Amino acid sequence: MQIGIIGAGNVGGTLGRAWAQKGHEVMFGVRQPKTGKVQTLLEQAGGGAKAGTVAEAAAFGSVVTLATPWPATREALRTAGDLAGKVLLDCTNPLKADFSGLEVGHTTSGAEQVALWAKGARVVKIFNSTGFENMANPKYGKGAAVTMFFAGDDAAAKGIAAQLAREIGFEPVDAGPLGNARLLEPLAMLWIHLAFAQKQGTGIAFKLLRR
Amino acid sequence: MQIGIIGAGNVGGTLGRAWAQKGHEVMFGVRQPKTGKVQTLLEQAGGGAKAGTVAEAAAFGSVVTLATPWPATREALRTAGDLAGKVLLDCTNPLKADFSGLEVGHTTSGAEQVALWAKGARVVKIFNSTGFENMANPKYGKGAAVTMFFAGDDAAAKGIAAQLAREIGFEPVDAGPLGNARLLEPLAMLWIHLAFAQKQGTGIAFKLLRR
Repeated sequence: MQIGIIGAGNVGGTLGRAWAQKGHEVMFGVRQPKTGKVQTLLEQAGGGAKAGTVAEAAAFGSVVTLATPWPATREALRTAGDLAGKVLLDCTNPLKADFSGLEVGHTTSGAEQVALWAKGARVVKIFNSTGFENMANPKYGKGAAVTMFFAGDDAAAKGIAAQLAREIGFEPVDAGPLGNARLLEPLAMLWIHLAFAQKQGTGIAFKLLRR
Repeated sequence: MQIGIIGAGNVGGTLGRAWAQKGHEVMFGVRQPKTGKVQTLLEQAGGGAKAGTVAEAAAFGSVVTLATPWPATREALRTAGDLAGKVLLDCTNPLKADFSGLEVGHTTSGAEQVALWAKGARVVKIFNSTGFENMANPKYGKGAAVTMFFAGDDAAAKGIAAQLAREIGFEPVDAGPLGNARLLEPLAMLWIHLAFAQKQGTGIAFKLLRR
């Protein structure tokens, strides 16, 4: 699969590296593709990854992964250009600047905002409810896979999102339509609160148990 | 401990039965204490349980468990009378009548409404994020305990809530101040969506994994 990644921070970098290592073609879209940090990321990712501008990465991918800090998200989508028809994996969380809570919720969600901004994109909310450390290693204890909830309105796009989650070790679970990002973004906030405010650290993750 | 339970439906009935079987004194507060349904519940709960009016159960308990359907909650608290100083376990969820979503969220929560209505009560949000079937048996597979998140502003009240969760088999996890019910009520909605809309059934539950 050809995967463009908007943002090469902790989340985008970790996901892109993992997918490149699984054999996908990955392009990181960043403001400055030539920095040492980006070059290090490309070396870690192996031969399947390259870097370009945000617009180049967006054009490159049939799947585009949105992994920007919330305040940069709207401008990044503007820079990305036309995403119509592409699968857009929204990994963002609409966090307040001080991480104390969410900017939006209940009557809308970050994902629904993203869908408004990225006209025609097939948005799936995913990879938002856990830390990048868990994305690098989603197996706990005796192989228990961390659950990755996802939400979207396009069944085929959700299937691709689920596959990409499963390939890197998560157990994907369909959490319904895109509007249910109103539930998954508070779940991310719960993780953030437990990890940092409650000082449990980032070695925690949600799993859906089944009888 | 003396525990009053407001509402003897699935949640209140299951919790009260479990606590009575653990040796606590339980009083179910119901509109009609003499019905066959209530008598059956008392028989199942064993010698440690009795039934009375809502006001009697509220007066009886040093811990009062609020397990009403959302539309009945405000009136039940009015009927309960003075709850100042009591630990009030809020197990409700502010569900829309058709269970499609939450009535309130993001800028407030059901728990914060409850705290406004029950002046002076030491409110803890707990037992809202899973089904009553899991309350009857919170152990999955090889003894994995379902996580029970709770939120509140009174540390001692939270300690009591955590103990009551642990006694019946949950792994309690402190999710912060009462305002974080804004995260735990969407978590309940996610469970409801997965169990019913996604047809996964009620044999599912959230667990917080730790490395």
